[in-house]
Amino acid sequence: MVQEPSAAIIIIGNEILSGRTLDKNTQHIAESLTKLGIVLEEVRIIPDQENRIIETVNQLRQHVNYVFTTGGIGPTHDDITTPSIAKAFGVPVVRNKEAADALTQKYESEGKLNEYRLKMADVPEGADLIANPISIAPGYRMENVFVLAGIPAIMQVMFDHVIPHLKTGSPIHSKSISGYILEGDIAEILGDLQKQYHDVEIGSYPFVKDKGPGTTLVFRSTNEKSLILAYEQLKTVLHRQQYHIIKEE
Amino acid sequence: MVQEPSAAIIIIGNEILSGRTLDKNTQHIAESLTKLGIVLEEVRIIPDQENRIIETVNQLRQHVNYVFTTGGIGPTHDDITTPSIAKAFGVPVVRNKEAADALTQKYESEGKLNEYRLKMADVPEGADLIANPISIAPGYRMENVFVLAGIPAIMQVMFDHVIPHLKTGSPIHSKSISGYILEGDIAEILGDLQKQYHDVEIGSYPFVKDKGPGTTLVFRSTNEKSLILAYEQLKTVLHRQQYHIIKEE
Repeated sequence: MVQEPSAAIIIIGNEILSGRTLDKNTQHIAESLTKLGIVLEEVRIIPDQENRIIETVNQLRQHVNYVFTTGGIGPTHDDITTPSIAKAFGVPVVRNKEAADALTQKYESEGKLNEYRLKMADVPEGADLIANPISIAPGYRMENVFVLAGIPAIMQVMFDHVIPHLKTGSPIHSKSISGYILEGDIAEILGDLQKQYHDVEIGSYPFVKDKGPGTTLVFRSTNEKSLILAYEQLKTVLHRQQYHIIKEE
Repeated sequence: MVQEPSAAIIIIGNEILSGRTLDKNTQHIAESLTKLGIVLEEVRIIPDQENRIIETVNQLRQHVNYVFTTGGIGPTHDDITTPSIAKAFGVPVVRNKEAADALTQKYESEGKLNEYRLKMADVPEGADLIANPISIAPGYRMENVFVLAGIPAIMQVMFDHVIPHLKTGSPIHSKSISGYILEGDIAEILGDLQKQYHDVEIGSYPFVKDKGPGTTLVFRSTNEKSLILAYEQLKTVLHRQQYHIIKEE
């Protein structure tokens, strides 16, 4: 089996760790990576602290093909991602001319250009810019580390620019079925099915809805044929046992 | 300054890493810890893989006062958190009599007792149970590691049972103000304010709403007096500059 490309996400943000903000960037990146056949190995949410950023970036960039960071690249005092990334790579922070020109063009006519806005043109030496058509201040790439904004709308356009530069893996096919099925009732069937189909990952995710407890069963595989065989086999059993099915995808 | 108690969360779940499910457990635990004055140092989202669970649990439990895991303690083949935690602590998995009796009582009369359901009474040797009044199958504590369910509703009742056992820290006070303010316009003021109030953490979180871009400014401190002084000082400036304020909390 070919080794699929791998990735990790580092969410940099005290506002997530304090519970004030729900992190939605992980799900967006995770979904996109799945479509690209890139395996997301791990996500770490860490505070805006230089030593933690350096340590986490340097650990993860050696273990996966791609690292994505979000957050901490704005103009305020608490935005310390860029100097931390520069230290992680042992290079100085330099002002990028292209980015500084673009920010100058945007803000000068409005009389709003200042040193804090220009700080957003500072990148680690050697970084390649990632365009941000929404608010101009760019993200950037250092080797296999992609440094993206924290605001979801801006993070998403930056990520769209990154996609063409990523090595994709085998597409991961998936099928799922949800119903008022209790995990404990079908654990044996699922276990047997998993033993039969080694190349299909069978996940069982219980939920509690208004009508009571149920389960979503998710089948994932790069082998579409195995996937369908396993899935149809389960469906036959569930229909025979007359479970109330809510959704199939 | 007294060292506040610290914590880490380990979200165990392929469904989060594939992007299929949005993790909401982090925010719930994070909010609760903040209220308790416990500092959440880090969150890691990892796959349902034994070696990754062992490694992550053993790393984090040495660095923080409390580790909370969510996910992987159900009856199906993909629920491997318990054997992994047992290996992390170097102890065998044993069937807990109290938990087995409760599960037996719940399911026997319905003719639904089976080995898979009883598997949910298995815990690492030496674990203390955490009650689950919703679906009976318990979570548990091993030293400073709390092993909780993945379903948010069940995770939350388990977490409520855990709270009285946690050492709390100094309560963290917070104030915030949101408005159509551009970070670049107030970066200097904020930076100066941060220099003036060392014991207040000033966070600046930009957003994009229908009416355009804005920023939420969050002040957090265990020193309520400093917090209010810093916050009122900023408010005076914002009002003088006639910013459109959306919300104060």
